[in-house]
Amino acid sequence: MMENWELDLQPYKQAVEELKVKLRSLREQYQRSSRHTPIEFVTGRVKPIGSIEEKAKRKNIPLRELEQRMQDIAGIRIVCQFVTDIDTIVDMIRSRKDITIINERDYIKEKKSSGYRSFHMVIDYPVHTIKGTKHILVEIQVRTMAMNFWATIEHSLNYKYRGEIPDDIKERLYRASEAAYNLDEEMSKIQGEVREAQSIIALRQGEHRTSFKNG
Amino acid sequence: MMENWELDLQPYKQAVEELKVKLRSLREQYQRSSRHTPIEFVTGRVKPIGSIEEKAKRKNIPLRELEQRMQDIAGIRIVCQFVTDIDTIVDMIRSRKDITIINERDYIKEKKSSGYRSFHMVIDYPVHTIKGTKHILVEIQVRTMAMNFWATIEHSLNYKYRGEIPDDIKERLYRASEAAYNLDEEMSKIQGEVREAQSIIALRQGEHRTSFKNG
Amino acid sequence: MMENWELDLQPYKQAVEELKVKLRSLREQYQRSSRHTPIEFVTGRVKPIGSIEEKAKRKNIPLRELEQRMQDIAGIRIVCQFVTDIDTIVDMIRSRKDITIINERDYIKEKKSSGYRSFHMVIDYPVHTIKGTKHILVEIQVRTMAMNFWATIEHSLNYKYRGEIPDDIKERLYRASEAAYNLDEEMSKIQGEVREAQSIIALRQGEHRTSFKNG
Amino acid sequence: MMENWELDLQPYKQAVEELKVKLRSLREQYQRSSRHTPIEFVTGRVKPIGSIEEKAKRKNIPLRELEQRMQDIAGIRIVCQFVTDIDTIVDMIRSRKDITIINERDYIKEKKSSGYRSFHMVIDYPVHTIKGTKHILVEIQVRTMAMNFWATIEHSLNYKYRGEIPDDIKERLYRASEAAYNLDEEMSKIQGEVREAQSIIALRQGEHRTSFKNG
Repeated sequence: MMENWELDLQPYKQAVEELKVKLRSLREQYQRSSRHTPIEFVTGRVKPIGSIEEKAKRKNIPLRELEQRMQDIAGIRIVCQFVTDIDTIVDMIRSRKDITIINERDYIKEKKSSGYRSFHMVIDYPVHTIKGTKHILVEIQVRTMAMNFWATIEHSLNYKYRGEIPDDIKERLYRASEAAYNLDEEMSKIQGEVREAQSIIALRQGEHRTSFKNG
Repeated sequence: MMENWELDLQPYKQAVEELKVKLRSLREQYQRSSRHTPIEFVTGRVKPIGSIEEKAKRKNIPLRELEQRMQDIAGIRIVCQFVTDIDTIVDMIRSRKDITIINERDYIKEKKSSGYRSFHMVIDYPVHTIKGTKHILVEIQVRTMAMNFWATIEHSLNYKYRGEIPDDIKERLYRASEAAYNLDEEMSKIQGEVREAQSIIALRQGEHRTSFKNG
Repeated sequence: MMENWELDLQPYKQAVEELKVKLRSLREQYQRSSRHTPIEFVTGRVKPIGSIEEKAKRKNIPLRELEQRMQDIAGIRIVCQFVTDIDTIVDMIRSRKDITIINERDYIKEKKSSGYRSFHMVIDYPVHTIKGTKHILVEIQVRTMAMNFWATIEHSLNYKYRGEIPDDIKERLYRASEAAYNLDEEMSKIQGEVREAQSIIALRQGEHRTSFKNG
Repeated sequence: MMENWELDLQPYKQAVEELKVKLRSLREQYQRSSRHTPIEFVTGRVKPIGSIEEKAKRKNIPLRELEQRMQDIAGIRIVCQFVTDIDTIVDMIRSRKDITIINERDYIKEKKSSGYRSFHMVIDYPVHTIKGTKHILVEIQVRTMAMNFWATIEHSLNYKYRGEIPDDIKERLYRASEAAYNLDEEMSKIQGEVREAQSIIALRQGEHRTSFKNG
């Protein structure tokens, strides 16, 4: 790695595709089984080549060590409605036999000073290529819709200011993170009601149930 | 309509599929052109048969008048980051020649008493079937991520209580809608910064740009 | 055209995506309506940049005239079981209001000296971009599975020899085109039987019908 | 099995989805690596409920033994250009660690009396469900485009006559199978040329290479 980027990134793309199919299938199973589904939606991406190069330079990682040391080349994001869903998802990932957990970081119990909240896991996932089995590191981020909204904005600003966001913007951003946190708090309060409600919906609609999220 | 549901709903499904492809393509064009993209994601669904029947009964609509009188059998939802993006999207839809606007309802300027906010449009969209051209009504909902989060929850509760949500739950739900509103307000304040930031990102990454939302 | 290839080819990609969705939907409608479906599968592609440049050079087309003079930048292929299905598909395309036929070439009645058989149509298709409506030329090829198999092979050989296939290979290829023609002839003979059979299948399986081609 | 069909068939659907993603990824890898790709396209399906019930009745299989004894509830089909590609694909499947081969049947060396040709494998494939790991039987069929064309027609006729095709139709069908065989033979003769040609194409087009089959 990484002489021919397209070729080298192919197994990362494959890992992302396979994990998206697997996790979205779990989502569908929850829906069909008339239980609250802890997975609102699943997205995935392979880090753009430009971002890999920039990060390698910034963190001083030689290209030949990228596979071991850059743990977010392949990324999966699982977004859920409630903060408590995050535990359910993390437990479910831990119990899978096709995935090995490498490390975990809980930025919800200990949020970053910026206001960032999310649960991160780095996993080892084997893919079968035309040259044999290859082990790929994948970063999985688990977060609520409110955390996700905020993080999208923070990501843009961080990029703009190359990590050096001016103090006034930082402050505004932190206040927005509090608004996101409050939204999660209010949602938690009505969660019991909602969980019960969603089981009833699933039962009533049976397999005719479709939803905007199936897009 | 509606003797053979699967057959009768087929053109609705087709309209939803075509509009999803068309609107997602706009999203991609914004991204490639290095401008802030007012479209975060697009989803669509055909109303489940059970829900159509229930609504027809509740609103006293005979089945043969469904096509004209039930305007949300086909539904498209466009979700964006900022409240001001909603105007951009609405203008863009109004200017398309493949779509005729039937009516509009602005539940953002005048939110519902429940706390519900969104911009609704009902459009006439022609699809080509094996029996010729057919005009389909489609409801388009345009909202921010925060409005969307809240509406998802409210929908579940409304369903559970068949439109008769108890007062204490209603109150909690209303407080959550205020938290969602506050999040939108905070986001608006940093919007100018973010817009500028996103153009820079798009320019830097060029066509290597990928994103979790492309999933 | 064509300073920024990615941006310039975007509307072509959009046209291909929209037409694939529209034509595949017709296929599904035929299946659901218990009639023989004249569409076996639909594929589409935007011509690779390298091939556009090569062809422009070979045919002496200035880049600024590409949009008008290179008619196969966007390509759609419709593959069917029987030779007579081709007429059905061509008539159906001619009758659509969202498509304007620019020209047609019938390489089935008059096959090329190479053995190539297919029905070609060039159409004008309008797409809505963020800069307004844009008219795109799209080449539609209609052919049987046997014609398609042969054409795939011929395309590879033509490419290899840059249009100058040696005489012995040409002869072999011509014999293979006769084998493909014979397969189409044998299929035509049992076609009446098959058509009837397929309607019965569709009726029996009702909406549970799935097929490998839906992939 | 099988009280709630939708729920019971869910893991079969999941197995089919995962295998399609995995096998299509191999196809893409071959293309990018500038080698002849032995995989033309991959399709998959879960057997329709009606067909499962009919077959269970005909073969006298009690519903509770379906999972073990009906080996084609989940089906994957891999279609290739040349007869020799079939061996390549079979070897590749045998060497995968995420798949266990249960049995193989070579209807190419020994074609059926009807004229049917294909290579069949039944595999054991584990899927992770919300209730834990579940082992699913999947039938994989490997065949050329000509074999596939013929088999599609034969399937329809067999269905129509419930396995009792009249002798005159049988004869026509057998002649068509010979025409399909001849097409494969002619293709084999120019195969060496084509293989070489395709590597050159892949090299020239590099990652700009797209193809109608990617549809």
